[in-house]
Amino acid sequence: MLTTNPFDDDKLREECGIFGVSGMDGAAAAVALGLHALQHRGQEAAGITSFDGRQFHIHRAMGHVAGNFDRDDVIRGLHGDTACGHVRYSTTGETSLRNVQPLYAELASGGFAIAHNGNISNAMRLRRDLIRRGAIFQSTSDTEVIIHLVATSQFRTLIDRFIDALKQVEGAYSLIVMTPEGMIACRDPLGIRPLVMGKLDDTIVFASETVALDVVGADYVRDVEPGELVIVKGGEISSHKPFAPVGARPCIFEYVYFSRPDSISDNRSVYSVRKAIGAQLAIEAPVEADLVVPVPDSGVPAAIGYAQQSGIPFELGIIRSHYVGRTFIQPGDQIRHLGVKLKHNANRELIKGKRVVLIDDSIVRGTTSLKIVQMMREAGAAEVHMRIASPPTRHSCFYGVDTPERAKLLAAKLDVGGMTDFIHADSLAFISIDGLYKALGEAHRADIHPKYCDACFTGEYPTTLTDQDENGPPTDQFALLHERVG
Amino acid sequence: MLTTNPFDDDKLREECGIFGVSGMDGAAAAVALGLHALQHRGQEAAGITSFDGRQFHIHRAMGHVAGNFDRDDVIRGLHGDTACGHVRYSTTGETSLRNVQPLYAELASGGFAIAHNGNISNAMRLRRDLIRRGAIFQSTSDTEVIIHLVATSQFRTLIDRFIDALKQVEGAYSLIVMTPEGMIACRDPLGIRPLVMGKLDDTIVFASETVALDVVGADYVRDVEPGELVIVKGGEISSHKPFAPVGARPCIFEYVYFSRPDSISDNRSVYSVRKAIGAQLAIEAPVEADLVVPVPDSGVPAAIGYAQQSGIPFELGIIRSHYVGRTFIQPGDQIRHLGVKLKHNANRELIKGKRVVLIDDSIVRGTTSLKIVQMMREAGAAEVHMRIASPPTRHSCFYGVDTPERAKLLAAKLDVGGMTDFIHADSLAFISIDGLYKALGEAHRADIHPKYCDACFTGEYPTTLTDQDENGPPTDQFALLHERVG
Amino acid sequence: MLTTNPFDDDKLREECGIFGVSGMDGAAAAVALGLHALQHRGQEAAGITSFDGRQFHIHRAMGHVAGNFDRDDVIRGLHGDTACGHVRYSTTGETSLRNVQPLYAELASGGFAIAHNGNISNAMRLRRDLIRRGAIFQSTSDTEVIIHLVATSQFRTLIDRFIDALKQVEGAYSLIVMTPEGMIACRDPLGIRPLVMGKLDDTIVFASETVALDVVGADYVRDVEPGELVIVKGGEISSHKPFAPVGARPCIFEYVYFSRPDSISDNRSVYSVRKAIGAQLAIEAPVEADLVVPVPDSGVPAAIGYAQQSGIPFELGIIRSHYVGRTFIQPGDQIRHLGVKLKHNANRELIKGKRVVLIDDSIVRGTTSLKIVQMMREAGAAEVHMRIASPPTRHSCFYGVDTPERAKLLAAKLDVGGMTDFIHADSLAFISIDGLYKALGEAHRADIHPKYCDACFTGEYPTTLTDQDENGPPTDQFALLHERVG
Amino acid sequence: MLTTNPFDDDKLREECGIFGVSGMDGAAAAVALGLHALQHRGQEAAGITSFDGRQFHIHRAMGHVAGNFDRDDVIRGLHGDTACGHVRYSTTGETSLRNVQPLYAELASGGFAIAHNGNISNAMRLRRDLIRRGAIFQSTSDTEVIIHLVATSQFRTLIDRFIDALKQVEGAYSLIVMTPEGMIACRDPLGIRPLVMGKLDDTIVFASETVALDVVGADYVRDVEPGELVIVKGGEISSHKPFAPVGARPCIFEYVYFSRPDSISDNRSVYSVRKAIGAQLAIEAPVEADLVVPVPDSGVPAAIGYAQQSGIPFELGIIRSHYVGRTFIQPGDQIRHLGVKLKHNANRELIKGKRVVLIDDSIVRGTTSLKIVQMMREAGAAEVHMRIASPPTRHSCFYGVDTPERAKLLAAKLDVGGMTDFIHADSLAFISIDGLYKALGEAHRADIHPKYCDACFTGEYPTTLTDQDENGPPTDQFALLHERVG
Repeated sequence: MLTTNPFDDDKLREECGIFGVSGMDGAAAAVALGLHALQHRGQEAAGITSFDGRQFHIHRAMGHVAGNFDRDDVIRGLHGDTACGHVRYSTTGETSLRNVQPLYAELASGGFAIAHNGNISNAMRLRRDLIRRGAIFQSTSDTEVIIHLVATSQFRTLIDRFIDALKQVEGAYSLIVMTPEGMIACRDPLGIRPLVMGKLDDTIVFASETVALDVVGADYVRDVEPGELVIVKGGEISSHKPFAPVGARPCIFEYVYFSRPDSISDNRSVYSVRKAIGAQLAIEAPVEADLVVPVPDSGVPAAIGYAQQSGIPFELGIIRSHYVGRTFIQPGDQIRHLGVKLKHNANRELIKGKRVVLIDDSIVRGTTSLKIVQMMREAGAAEVHMRIASPPTRHSCFYGVDTPERAKLLAAKLDVGGMTDFIHADSLAFISIDGLYKALGEAHRADIHPKYCDACFTGEYPTTLTDQDENGPPTDQFALLHERVG
Repeated sequence: MLTTNPFDDDKLREECGIFGVSGMDGAAAAVALGLHALQHRGQEAAGITSFDGRQFHIHRAMGHVAGNFDRDDVIRGLHGDTACGHVRYSTTGETSLRNVQPLYAELASGGFAIAHNGNISNAMRLRRDLIRRGAIFQSTSDTEVIIHLVATSQFRTLIDRFIDALKQVEGAYSLIVMTPEGMIACRDPLGIRPLVMGKLDDTIVFASETVALDVVGADYVRDVEPGELVIVKGGEISSHKPFAPVGARPCIFEYVYFSRPDSISDNRSVYSVRKAIGAQLAIEAPVEADLVVPVPDSGVPAAIGYAQQSGIPFELGIIRSHYVGRTFIQPGDQIRHLGVKLKHNANRELIKGKRVVLIDDSIVRGTTSLKIVQMMREAGAAEVHMRIASPPTRHSCFYGVDTPERAKLLAAKLDVGGMTDFIHADSLAFISIDGLYKALGEAHRADIHPKYCDACFTGEYPTTLTDQDENGPPTDQFALLHERVG
Repeated sequence: MLTTNPFDDDKLREECGIFGVSGMDGAAAAVALGLHALQHRGQEAAGITSFDGRQFHIHRAMGHVAGNFDRDDVIRGLHGDTACGHVRYSTTGETSLRNVQPLYAELASGGFAIAHNGNISNAMRLRRDLIRRGAIFQSTSDTEVIIHLVATSQFRTLIDRFIDALKQVEGAYSLIVMTPEGMIACRDPLGIRPLVMGKLDDTIVFASETVALDVVGADYVRDVEPGELVIVKGGEISSHKPFAPVGARPCIFEYVYFSRPDSISDNRSVYSVRKAIGAQLAIEAPVEADLVVPVPDSGVPAAIGYAQQSGIPFELGIIRSHYVGRTFIQPGDQIRHLGVKLKHNANRELIKGKRVVLIDDSIVRGTTSLKIVQMMREAGAAEVHMRIASPPTRHSCFYGVDTPERAKLLAAKLDVGGMTDFIHADSLAFISIDGLYKALGEAHRADIHPKYCDACFTGEYPTTLTDQDENGPPTDQFALLHERVG
Repeated sequence: MLTTNPFDDDKLREECGIFGVSGMDGAAAAVALGLHALQHRGQEAAGITSFDGRQFHIHRAMGHVAGNFDRDDVIRGLHGDTACGHVRYSTTGETSLRNVQPLYAELASGGFAIAHNGNISNAMRLRRDLIRRGAIFQSTSDTEVIIHLVATSQFRTLIDRFIDALKQVEGAYSLIVMTPEGMIACRDPLGIRPLVMGKLDDTIVFASETVALDVVGADYVRDVEPGELVIVKGGEISSHKPFAPVGARPCIFEYVYFSRPDSISDNRSVYSVRKAIGAQLAIEAPVEADLVVPVPDSGVPAAIGYAQQSGIPFELGIIRSHYVGRTFIQPGDQIRHLGVKLKHNANRELIKGKRVVLIDDSIVRGTTSLKIVQMMREAGAAEVHMRIASPPTRHSCFYGVDTPERAKLLAAKLDVGGMTDFIHADSLAFISIDGLYKALGEAHRADIHPKYCDACFTGEYPTTLTDQDENGPPTDQFALLHERVG
């Protein structure tokens, strides 16, 4: 079987994007647009929940936003001036419709819908406790524990119950919650996953990235702060900070790969950061060459930065097909050992006889890098030098990013020399961790309170990892049930 | 809009059929066959859950068994030697996939799947109490309260928790439950809804009707008794009777219409009972006529009984199409006021100039009877006499049968004379309630402890009706959420 | 694999039904109703073509009328006050959408749509000749040769070209043709396949059977006569008889099985004919027995006739499921050798210990009869006597009926004694050919000019069989192309 | 309604890509890969025909190659070691499955399948003549006339009949034909549309572009020459040149936009030509600016060329979403007048306060250019200068490219000054026609025998345009029939 996505298998995957709108006619239609702009954060499934002041409406579907939420009948069924939505990859929880968010429950206080970006790192322990006390889970999602903690909290008001619940969970969470009491947006105390607030006339909008504000024409107001709850009801906004303050640790990989280059994160242009990384890389790891070639499309901004810094011309040496398929049938034997280029193709006439600097954002398993280097060589490149716009990825993420188990991370197994051999490159270099912080405006990475979560590079996790410590990798923990729907 | 089901709108509908198999390779395939044989008991949705000793597998779908459960990929996914299934109409709970049974939950004791035929008549009160205590419901089905009562019971063993739960519910229930502890089949203390046990070598089979045993080649062993729990585990069968004994009150309408004529209920052939009803009707309400014509297909056995008793020839005066559609577009004006016969057609040459006795099983709204009488008259019948194989249906059912609200029941509004006028018949007669008991082998209906639940005819409900008394008809009680799936 | 249609495999299949309406608002909607009433004549595919005075509209689909032609969007797209339609089994021509009728072509004279019931018995020779002259066929249907003969005719007017074409074809054809010149209905000179004309105010309706007139409320006017062309244009009807007159030979099997019992054919009630056949069978082949049991549903009228003549009670000894599926997965081993009763089930309590007369309309391969007899024996029947309401089916039909090749016809291989053994019956009898004619009001079958085509019983084919003589069975003649569409 | 393709509406569309493989196990699977690489040439429908030496197999579907031809069941049904395929936009002929290519017909010589890139400019006149002589068309495609001309040719051998047919047609055609006599690839005498030949071991491959050779690992051998027929049978290749030689006129727009940048056309790298156009544009139309920003993705190579020549930095000022939808529902009023950026988004932080040179390949209606300029201004650009990598598009194409009618071409209505105002740019410039030829290695455009078809820029059509002269635009010429399939 051949696939048009040979290289995508070798990326870290952001698992979610969330988007909420409070106080707009046709809120669900705006959420559909916002989710479409966040589609790169999760392509497996999507859902939208709306509230019309009386009743909640929900539509969830496997697949992309387009195709599911650009249908008139779907959007018209999602009544109300408040709505939120979610796009997802699954990190924990099987891939089935009942895990697609927003999750919904009917509490004594009324309906409760929740969309979550992140990962609760003590979800399994909490779940076991709740089931022991008689709770019945409708999904295998870690997110559902929050709902049960709210439902069984001894506090009186819904907000107090919600804060009570959050104080029991550990890990990363940016949340948008809808209740008859209003919409609540919040981030965990470390602010690991992003969440921004925008405004369009009297409408308040929350989104994982600013590009989703752009698409609905909303202005970026500010980030929801780490540890902050923003409550919107009837046009009124209130801010709550129920947690003891700690230094924020937003995910540094959002700048490297996850966020779209046209997003603004913490007042910083992601595109500019990536160009700065490329420039820093040119300083740290220069090379004599004829062409700077980005691995499309994520390597482009860093490649421009590298080219401008080094003076070596930027060229499209790899052309990417815009048409994506799943798996094509392998034709006869003679084609079997030939490189198949369903998604990327070398620009042969350009590459032939040239010394090429390839720029990519990261190396995960290394399989893609190997194929790309081979493709360059088959096209006649004289030399192939690989430059990577992030430090070696050596550790798994437990905060909502789909990383392979450690044993499959190339950088966890090999040093840079070994990796160079593995991908058959003439040379290979990664930006240093201090260089990465430099591109973000810091002098270097602070030893004591580094400004970002960089655990995938350094192994320094900013929270405890209860489930991980107790259970090891979360394989099949909740797989008592295998469900399919017709 | 024209529909091929004009007459079906005017029947009482059994809301469910259930089927379970313990100890057979490919149990899910046998359940699919069994449910197909029970399809007449519920055509809206179907589901099968299997257990392979380690994991539960579930597939649920809107629509018929055929088309959903005759697919290789579906059945192969339902591993295990134990499985149960359900076909449904909805009486309470909206029509959506999350209400399709078997319902499933993960309890502290492991997976728990439940298939229910009947209706819990205090479900709404129980649900409100449970939510107040922090329970989160995944469906709007009355059946789910049983699961939550089990989950939150203070008893220790699963069986004790299950019995504890049943003691809190009121109404009608035949249940098949699957747990890692084995399969449990049970009936409410009055045995309102049917449930039979069969055997095929070492395999134990439970089914709503014996026809479903026939289809898998199992022998009918006996009925599960009212108030009995039968537990099957590893080939061992045990019987439990946790309830104080009360006189059984099985539904009499199963003999009139719900059960298939080839089923055996309580050791009685349904076909023979229906013929006996027809014969009794010929004695109670004779008429001079040329032809006995059944309203197909449910009126056929009673019509044969009537014809044999009266000596008037049995003839197919109404032909039924086997091809069912949904709604055809109305053609131009000229056809508008003509009777449209998509499903039934008069056998004109036979009817012309004849005195016809029509035999039907029941009259609900009366709209069908009116159309059928008109069809006979348009075909040239000299006289049209209607004879009904049940007493007038004057009361709603709260035990799992979809009856219209009382105000729409023709017999709740008019006496027999008024009904005769309404349907434009030359004469109309119903079998008497004592005549009906007589056809079932009784001398007459006992005043004190009648042997059947006949509340739809007599208004004497054998249980309290908590929700009904508190809330009136169960419209939209749980409709906080409107969900659709893609 | 188990199927709910085990017995249907063993019937002769009528391959087509046609229906046309001229001069009615929403003609296509009326055609959909008419085709639904003719669904028993072909369930593989259906099509409707309409003409709005300027443009032809066509919708064709695999599957039933309901599900395809009860959709608002489909019918609304079929503009115009004239429309015709077709339901089909395939006898010649592969099963693909391009063979679904009405076929359409753009001729020099304008659009030309044709719906055909029957079979052109020299189609292959004509097709070869036409291709040699440069014709390009769009289907593998025998019907398309008629269009090409019209297109290439040397005559001037469309009617003359059409008659010229018909004079070159041989075999059976009832046709409804739509052209800008009006609607043409015609039957071959022998009138092998049926076609009736009806009237509803100013609308003219053509149909394969009168039941399709009933469904739209049209009155039966008369049969289109053998060899007659009826042309309807602008409300004017004209009749043409371009062929030399020959004695008509309508298909006798329409009375035995194909037509619905509530149809009137040649002024005879099909139901009455079938009862007369049953009565005649009781006279020719009496038996001491307790019950007359029809094989449902086609055996019912003859069984009523047999019961009334013999005085043995008519009883429903076999119950048929109304729910049809395709193929269920076989469960585990223990069920493998058990009779599976997905579609028919024995009414055991009735059958047990009784001597049973089974009545069926015909025996084709005999496999069904064998299973039915076994089912009766397993249910405890003391004796099983089979009586068949037609003579032994010994010969293939080449006039549009799907018969198995001769070698598979049980009666072509065995005499009645051998057949009795094969199906394990205590006795077996067929009505005689003269008895069959008697039930149709004749004294006996005429030796010289018998009144019906009875070739399937007698082997006397009323036309030459050019393709058959030249090529043998029409397997894969046109199978140069295997097409599927997405 | 909002669409993610706002800018694509404003491109010329290549209407077809073709691909053929002779002599490879699993030829159809290779064709699927090849068509996927040619998907940019036609996204409306696709088809593959294979030949297994005895029978032809065909699958055609609306939509992309992926999703239709990456399915195992589809490819496995397309047996044989020879196959060809087609991707299409419709220029003439309605959008329906019967027009999807390859078209197929059964001729006296056996099966005949044809895939066509181009447009027959006298198809309507030929069609009318053929229908008058009795031909029946199965499609409304111009391509079908070729088949009928072959079928009715008076020549004896298939090759002679095919050449006879081609001599009667006028216009542009690159064809791949499959017959039992072998595969034929040919180009019209002017070679307007491209067609290349490749080789992989003993397998011969034909494709519209070399990228499709790359994807299957075949080596580029040479272009099929204008006026050449290449016949492949049993591994043997023969070349025929039946036409009087004329100067070739390949389409110049292939270099501007249609072909993928990684294709080699006539031994020239398309990417290099586009960079040369950009460089020439920088010489012809320089501007003081801070950034060179491509309109993604087609403007990128020319933008790199412009940036390198001018020394102004190349930057990604517009980010394109990779997720494509159809039409989203417009949310409430307040969003109505805001620019909606479903597919492209400005990189605001980069653009703010900068003087921007936008590079696009062409301007068709100008609506896109207007939106892009506005997007830049809203993002805060100080100046917006538009540079176009082709001369003004002033004339329709009649050779298989979907151009709007002339009245809608912005350059047909306005001079460059008017266009500058229309798109609200600070300046606008197009490359000159001589500059374009220069980028292709010519000194300038030759007055007498220019080397390319540049009719869309110059209005000089290299062939007669019979249908155009007789009928005007080809609207609804063949729309006697409106067909839909189920």
